[in-house]
Amino acid sequence: MYADVARDVISRCRSLATYSDEPGFTTRTFLSDSMCQVHADLSAWMARVGMSVRLDAVGNLRGFYAGASADAPRLLVGSHLDTVPHAGAFDGVLGVVMGVALIETLHGRRLPFGIEILGFSEEEGVRFGVPFIGSRAVVLDVDEALLAVQDARGITIGQAIRDFGLDPAHIMDARAEANGLGYFEFHIEQGPVLDTLHRPLAVVDRIVGRSCADAIFNGSPGHAGTTPMDGRRDALAGAAEWIGGVEEYARCTPGLVATTGQVDVAPGAANVIPGRCRVSVDVRHAGDDARTAAIDRLRSLAHEIAARRGLRIDWWPRFDHPATTMSRSLVEMLARAVERAGAPGMIMSSGAGHDAMILAAHMPATMLFIRTPGGVSHHPDESVTEGDVAIALAAGMNFLDELAGAVDG
Amino acid sequence: MYADVARDVISRCRSLATYSDEPGFTTRTFLSDSMCQVHADLSAWMARVGMSVRLDAVGNLRGFYAGASADAPRLLVGSHLDTVPHAGAFDGVLGVVMGVALIETLHGRRLPFGIEILGFSEEEGVRFGVPFIGSRAVVLDVDEALLAVQDARGITIGQAIRDFGLDPAHIMDARAEANGLGYFEFHIEQGPVLDTLHRPLAVVDRIVGRSCADAIFNGSPGHAGTTPMDGRRDALAGAAEWIGGVEEYARCTPGLVATTGQVDVAPGAANVIPGRCRVSVDVRHAGDDARTAAIDRLRSLAHEIAARRGLRIDWWPRFDHPATTMSRSLVEMLARAVERAGAPGMIMSSGAGHDAMILAAHMPATMLFIRTPGGVSHHPDESVTEGDVAIALAAGMNFLDELAGAVDG
Repeated sequence: MYADVARDVISRCRSLATYSDEPGFTTRTFLSDSMCQVHADLSAWMARVGMSVRLDAVGNLRGFYAGASADAPRLLVGSHLDTVPHAGAFDGVLGVVMGVALIETLHGRRLPFGIEILGFSEEEGVRFGVPFIGSRAVVLDVDEALLAVQDARGITIGQAIRDFGLDPAHIMDARAEANGLGYFEFHIEQGPVLDTLHRPLAVVDRIVGRSCADAIFNGSPGHAGTTPMDGRRDALAGAAEWIGGVEEYARCTPGLVATTGQVDVAPGAANVIPGRCRVSVDVRHAGDDARTAAIDRLRSLAHEIAARRGLRIDWWPRFDHPATTMSRSLVEMLARAVERAGAPGMIMSSGAGHDAMILAAHMPATMLFIRTPGGVSHHPDESVTEGDVAIALAAGMNFLDELAGAVDG
Repeated sequence: MYADVARDVISRCRSLATYSDEPGFTTRTFLSDSMCQVHADLSAWMARVGMSVRLDAVGNLRGFYAGASADAPRLLVGSHLDTVPHAGAFDGVLGVVMGVALIETLHGRRLPFGIEILGFSEEEGVRFGVPFIGSRAVVLDVDEALLAVQDARGITIGQAIRDFGLDPAHIMDARAEANGLGYFEFHIEQGPVLDTLHRPLAVVDRIVGRSCADAIFNGSPGHAGTTPMDGRRDALAGAAEWIGGVEEYARCTPGLVATTGQVDVAPGAANVIPGRCRVSVDVRHAGDDARTAAIDRLRSLAHEIAARRGLRIDWWPRFDHPATTMSRSLVEMLARAVERAGAPGMIMSSGAGHDAMILAAHMPATMLFIRTPGGVSHHPDESVTEGDVAIALAAGMNFLDELAGAVDG
């Protein structure tokens, strides 16, 4: 029924993926030039389907499609427009494009609520090491301390906003209207679960908690040829032992995933024993207690390894997000909408963090996951099928109907 | 006896250490702007003590002090002027400064041989991943393939030479004169042996062999939150296991040192499972068979780990240098010179590679090691004592006398 729209949605995502900070890859960070090109494309399309378009002070692209009456409440539909380095074409962007596709599919029909499409400027945390800056601004969780955070080149978030032609002093204009009905997000699953179970969609009822930290191993640099093995305090050797320990702990802890994704070695020459090594760790679990216990254990493990090797640990927590529960009534409504579209009304928790997590603390929220072939995400091979996107659009339209019925009733 | 000269030598080294590619550290790579400043300082001093000065086509600074007759043979005294990143003030530079200090101490007295002081432009291999470019040019071991090697920014060695105002077509002008008497190098030990034994100096009779390679672990990148632990092919986790294996193998193999000094992880984001990880390995042993066996075993170990984890290894050898034997007659002459200076005539092998290794294949060579307090080298805390430098200068002057006696006799 929505095959043509689905084809168009996929084609738009692939086209937006060519806007990148890095030629040959899709790498689009917060407030980069390539983000500006994405805004230009999406704004034109939003305007064409009858939306009023603006950019808020943190760089979120926002299109509003008015409801049947001036005082109608407002449904937020959003996802993020930034990407990880060397990303695929669908993580984040698909949710924004599908939001606009829903509006286009309404063909001017008005609902008993307005719909605001949000293209969040920052979710991945790549540029500043802090994720969800876009959605945090919408719930007014951006303060001076956050604006002072610096990127690798020493540019603060506040300065990056100014460099993009926006004014961080107007940050209040990013807040969601008070008449919010709820938040809804389409997103690819980014994991292998739906693909393994041969299901196209799942409604998300919970987002796992996540803790991120940096473990810095400090040893003693020295000459690689003249320092006997037993006289070394090699920061990298200690870090490598810890990386193995992180992996082993996660493998032995049901439901836990732990990832060491970044390593910096100093001084970083082949003939110098490493004196310092920073390793990032990302820990996730649906249970907050299990996650907290894990991060505590991994921190202790770093100290144990360091003590045995004559190293010193600096431990820098980056953030801790508890698990988030979605709105039960919206989850049930969305599951009905999925079943009316002809797919099983499967419900699952999300192993990835999403903007819905930030919004859910302030309004009813839910998400619809779309199958990710092979579970491949954060990679150029990331994909979706036309069939799955079509059924997701059908479910989305049914969800708008369900919601209209609830508002009218 | 040489206390004033020793003080001056140390002060000159500390002053030259301020010429750096990186403010606040001593980092001086091949043909950088900071190398140009070092040349200016040393050239002025060389000229003042009666030497003719030139820069050869590979950027070696060369000062010649003529002998008593026009057809006198020539002693080469050298070391390198480049540094590792975040280096100390004495590795390399000390040998060049002490060479010029010897000439100054002659106060115009002519010997039955001329002395050429060589400040090699490149020894550490930092910029191009290939060490000893300076001394290799002196023995004409620089070919078109080497000139085509690129640095991290894609600049070839040939282009770097031209950018420095030199002409790689004149590379033949770097060759040593045919009437070479031998090569002599002062160098800090860069290890803990002399400091532990409370000895100021040692004569070097052998330089250990060295093999360097890169192990590249290729896995599959993926989302850190949605990929279960047992579905991962994490390149960094495999590399970390291998780094531990390298350390363990070296600890269990007498006389072997093995160092993993560089790690690059891609894509390198906290929330992405690493898909690729490159690790450098540097292996040294006085016995060539033990070194070859070690590098073979470490390569096999990488493949074993990769096979178990579903990863793929690319193995890139960088270079293999066999162990080098110094000239027995020069070693004995230098040991006598040390004893005449009042220190024990200790003899040891070098765990570090040196330019003497390159020259030794073409002429008689030897080295004099100077105690390195704490064994600290390749680090800003690297030091020497005035007393040790003074006795090394005395030994150097005695060595010139011994050599003069041998040439005259």
